[in-house]
Amino acid sequence: MARIAIDAMGGDYAPKTIVEGALWAAQEYGVGLELVGRQEEIQKEIDRIKSAGCIYSDCGTKGHKRRIKINVDKIDYTISHASEVIGMGEAVGQSIRKKKDSSIVASVRAVAEGRCEAVVSAGSTGAAMAASLFGLGRIHGVTRPAIAVTLPTLYKPVVLIDGGANSDCTPEMLAQFSEMGLVYAQDIVGVDEPKVGILSIGEEEGKGNALVKETYPLLKDLHEQGRINFVGNIEGKELFINKADVVVCDGFAGNIALKVTEGTASLLIKMIASEFKSDFVGSVIGLLAKPFLRRILKRTNWEDFGGMLLLGVKGISVIAHGRSSSYAMKNAVRAAVRVLNKDINSKIAENINK
Amino acid sequence: MARIAIDAMGGDYAPKTIVEGALWAAQEYGVGLELVGRQEEIQKEIDRIKSAGCIYSDCGTKGHKRRIKINVDKIDYTISHASEVIGMGEAVGQSIRKKKDSSIVASVRAVAEGRCEAVVSAGSTGAAMAASLFGLGRIHGVTRPAIAVTLPTLYKPVVLIDGGANSDCTPEMLAQFSEMGLVYAQDIVGVDEPKVGILSIGEEEGKGNALVKETYPLLKDLHEQGRINFVGNIEGKELFINKADVVVCDGFAGNIALKVTEGTASLLIKMIASEFKSDFVGSVIGLLAKPFLRRILKRTNWEDFGGMLLLGVKGISVIAHGRSSSYAMKNAVRAAVRVLNKDINSKIAENINK
Repeated sequence: MARIAIDAMGGDYAPKTIVEGALWAAQEYGVGLELVGRQEEIQKEIDRIKSAGCIYSDCGTKGHKRRIKINVDKIDYTISHASEVIGMGEAVGQSIRKKKDSSIVASVRAVAEGRCEAVVSAGSTGAAMAASLFGLGRIHGVTRPAIAVTLPTLYKPVVLIDGGANSDCTPEMLAQFSEMGLVYAQDIVGVDEPKVGILSIGEEEGKGNALVKETYPLLKDLHEQGRINFVGNIEGKELFINKADVVVCDGFAGNIALKVTEGTASLLIKMIASEFKSDFVGSVIGLLAKPFLRRILKRTNWEDFGGMLLLGVKGISVIAHGRSSSYAMKNAVRAAVRVLNKDINSKIAENINK
Repeated sequence: MARIAIDAMGGDYAPKTIVEGALWAAQEYGVGLELVGRQEEIQKEIDRIKSAGCIYSDCGTKGHKRRIKINVDKIDYTISHASEVIGMGEAVGQSIRKKKDSSIVASVRAVAEGRCEAVVSAGSTGAAMAASLFGLGRIHGVTRPAIAVTLPTLYKPVVLIDGGANSDCTPEMLAQFSEMGLVYAQDIVGVDEPKVGILSIGEEEGKGNALVKETYPLLKDLHEQGRINFVGNIEGKELFINKADVVVCDGFAGNIALKVTEGTASLLIKMIASEFKSDFVGSVIGLLAKPFLRRILKRTNWEDFGGMLLLGVKGISVIAHGRSSSYAMKNAVRAAVRVLNKDINSKIAENINK
């Protein structure tokens, strides 16, 4: 049975939603857990869930909560005590080095020492990334690991890489991201012959910032070598129309794109709610329309996509959203489980070192 | 009477929607026009509108077209022949220098030579920007002009600067953008004491890419001097929640943010349509909900916001969307008219040179 290390103290609602989501996932996907963090706090959550026999989750719909039965006795879990926690505002490099007994560093260690196959954390993205990088090491030939994110569209999902691991990138890094993203799109998302694009402003070659202009020839070169199928620049508005299956960018632009998507969706949903509430007829129609709108929320909800995978490290590291609910956490563990049997890391090593 | 120079050949549907929108605006806002481009093509459009006595526009709702009466005889317009056109894919610098008789270069000249107070173009953003920069010159002290864009939110609009004029920026440029954006937010958007933020990833100081980290102290410095009210980093998802009234960024990140907003909104609208069409009951509810959803489309539609203002040049230059309909073009002219009596350029010069 595969075993997943869980940073039980990472995330805005930790340890509550983290422990809940991890147990839920363990039961649903048949994996074992190593829950890492303050023993007493974790045990308290487990005792609570055990005595209730269930947890409550809105399952990503922000509405009515459903009761999910959890049979704690049937779950294979251990608790690993780690006394420290790395907060969201802390300087990453320093805290990783100093807080050797922090929950994130200790949960990565569980993978490095071979007790677990993957680590999942909803804590500070920077800390999770740094801890994974230092704790697991890079795949041979990889310059910098990057975050792969799956975005919903009307048809097949799009992989954005880098979602925020590297704020400043070189053209060579972006070229490697394209090869890592390709493997991810093929083996995890299930796209047959992924098209690779680069996030830019303007469609034509020669448009973009200095980084894009310098990366373009490298991607063209990989294309000519038959290593990727490069389709050129992808504008922000083209992200969701499957012009490319893998969109490469630096972590700054990628994170802006991700967060703007989240912000726009949230704005539109609020606008829809306010329009329907504007008069009585509207309120009635709004009530009727609710189940339909809820299905859309579900289709676009980040909680349904689980975590983002850190590609390029020797091991499996999933970074979940800081605001993860138990449902989001369950799906983040699912994201790790999906990667377990794919051995994408050997394939990445093979492609990068061609 | 103020006079606006119109690049009649710029835009995907030029000269049709451009001439229609310009005449519509001239009638509605009481301004004169200098229509610049191929004489014959422009005259043909005018003749057509004159003989019909009207134009048809969906007024930004993408639905039923409304008939708008246009009394061409009452509009004060001239046609300025310009034989060349700069296409979307052309190298900007070169085409501006070579095509002296292109519609965009000639319409900027109408302002430079004092015949017009403002220029509006829906052609290539890069060409419109370069033509304005070379034709009008920079305001004393301004390093680089930048594009100011107004974004809708639930409450008051947010100004994003730079929306795409400068793909690569220095910290000093971003600091200037903050002062230009401030004047725009105060005088054009009408925000009393605008809060200024910088687009970044992560909320805390010290998060972001190298450019953001180096710009941060400059903005703090301007804050301490009482020149701006700096509120720190703004994440992509916080763009629409009025945490800041002016959000500063380089033109690459800004354009990505703008276009991702457009792409996300378009994706959600399509998802809503597909959900409502999924069964018979849904179709009926969808029909009932349509007017409400249309109001939201209207609230978020870029066509309603008109053009983007190029700040920092000696004159008024409005850059409209390449896909401008007559309605969008009318509103782009309105954007120019709104700036006409504000003299924001003197205020920008004064602030920058403090």
